[in-house]
Amino acid sequence: MIKVAIIGYGNIGRAVEEAAKTAPDMVLAGIYHHNDNIDTINADVAVLCTPTRETPAYAERLIKQGIATVDSFDIHTRINEVRHLLDPQDKANKTVSIIAAGWDPGSDSMVRALLAALAPQGITYTNFGPGRSMGHTVAAKAIQGVRNALSMTIPLGTGIHRRMVYIELEDGADFKTVEAAILADDYFAHDETHVIAVQSVDELNNVAHGVNLVRSGVSGTTHNQRFEFNMTINNPALTGQVLVACARAAYKMKAREQYGVFTMIELAPIDLLYGEKEQLIKALV
Amino acid sequence: MIKVAIIGYGNIGRAVEEAAKTAPDMVLAGIYHHNDNIDTINADVAVLCTPTRETPAYAERLIKQGIATVDSFDIHTRINEVRHLLDPQDKANKTVSIIAAGWDPGSDSMVRALLAALAPQGITYTNFGPGRSMGHTVAAKAIQGVRNALSMTIPLGTGIHRRMVYIELEDGADFKTVEAAILADDYFAHDETHVIAVQSVDELNNVAHGVNLVRSGVSGTTHNQRFEFNMTINNPALTGQVLVACARAAYKMKAREQYGVFTMIELAPIDLLYGEKEQLIKALV
Repeated sequence: MIKVAIIGYGNIGRAVEEAAKTAPDMVLAGIYHHNDNIDTINADVAVLCTPTRETPAYAERLIKQGIATVDSFDIHTRINEVRHLLDPQDKANKTVSIIAAGWDPGSDSMVRALLAALAPQGITYTNFGPGRSMGHTVAAKAIQGVRNALSMTIPLGTGIHRRMVYIELEDGADFKTVEAAILADDYFAHDETHVIAVQSVDELNNVAHGVNLVRSGVSGTTHNQRFEFNMTINNPALTGQVLVACARAAYKMKAREQYGVFTMIELAPIDLLYGEKEQLIKALV
Repeated sequence: MIKVAIIGYGNIGRAVEEAAKTAPDMVLAGIYHHNDNIDTINADVAVLCTPTRETPAYAERLIKQGIATVDSFDIHTRINEVRHLLDPQDKANKTVSIIAAGWDPGSDSMVRALLAALAPQGITYTNFGPGRSMGHTVAAKAIQGVRNALSMTIPLGTGIHRRMVYIELEDGADFKTVEAAILADDYFAHDETHVIAVQSVDELNNVAHGVNLVRSGVSGTTHNQRFEFNMTINNPALTGQVLVACARAAYKMKAREQYGVFTMIELAPIDLLYGEKEQLIKALV
């Protein structure tokens, strides 16, 4: 049995707990809150469900103990930087870290890499939603006069997105002033954005999300090869499941002495799965 | 540069030639016809485009020379048997074989494995077509009274398929007799099948094909997670491209001393791709 520790116990930590409990090859080795001491824990793999920016520092503390780590670090532009930080530490402590293991970055990245292999020349568009954007929601909440907010991402195709921003105004706040401040914010200034005042943002909340990933490209010299990947999902449930699948992959890779840091495009899909190799090949290939 | 030899020069061999010529990291090391001597060839990777049943025997001759091999062996029920045959030979000769590397089995297998990881409980349906089935076409051509035939696979959903069989009758053949023989053939007896007499089968021929792969399942304890993968493609062009991408993966894995036999669900998507690791991660993750 793989001993899995959960570090951070918000929405994602809870989803990881659910997914780990349903995994036939895993046992929970402890759930640690944000401020708990994690410097001497007994686990094979730690799943980091802490805020993204703090994740690399948590990973370092666990790698020191030789524990494999998995996280869903989601700042696309900083992924190589985190790789360079953790890779030598993983190698020195003979362990494995899998980073950026959510659905995007994460499982979508595996699909993008596969489609690039199937049609090396072409364009891939990743269209998100409809679903809540955490980053945009936080940005809207930070605007003066906003009591509560929800920013929904609406896909318009070819990677272009509309932002639907639902806000509760603070008492006395002026809608037009707040709307102008949101539209001027760098998070919203580059997209088509609509601001709508509502009585209750909580009534609108929903963790549904989706992806429509499209590639048209060229295989060899043959054009018009068309590929599409769609999903409509409960967002934290999928993120938790991906983290648990990657915890399994990290465990297997460590057992094979493949030490170091990995993103999901560097993983073999079979390593994400529970089950005997021969049976998995029979069922899936 | 990876030196690639092509063994077998039918539709797939020609498609591999096109894909290898467009690959920036490959050079053609020779094209060998079915009966050419392949016992002393100079190549890093041999792509086997021979008839499926003969492929394992060709692989053995190349593995003996320490050459990596790639094939699109497509008899799903015999894949583990071929693994057991080739794996010890690959290890003894310090080389790599990637088998069942087409689009199904092949890239579809990678998608099926990924979706099983994203929602471990659930059902995946693979729907093929519209497109020509080689196996069914050959079976129809073998029926007495048939001069030429084309069997199209039409997806009806949930993995159920209709067979549209277009035939040219031989002079004096009776349509009703031929139709009854086709409907009774084991290839057709289990599916909804329609037989249609035409003047010219060649006029209908088209290498377009497609897949609609659907999974609805459970992530953690959350139901109604929905995933769909679609493609509409030129069949030999995609098969050729997959084989060339896997030739690259075999070359990289051999360089890392990961000797043995592999199916595509055991490959990391990044190994299929040309380019520098850091750049691929930046572009795709």
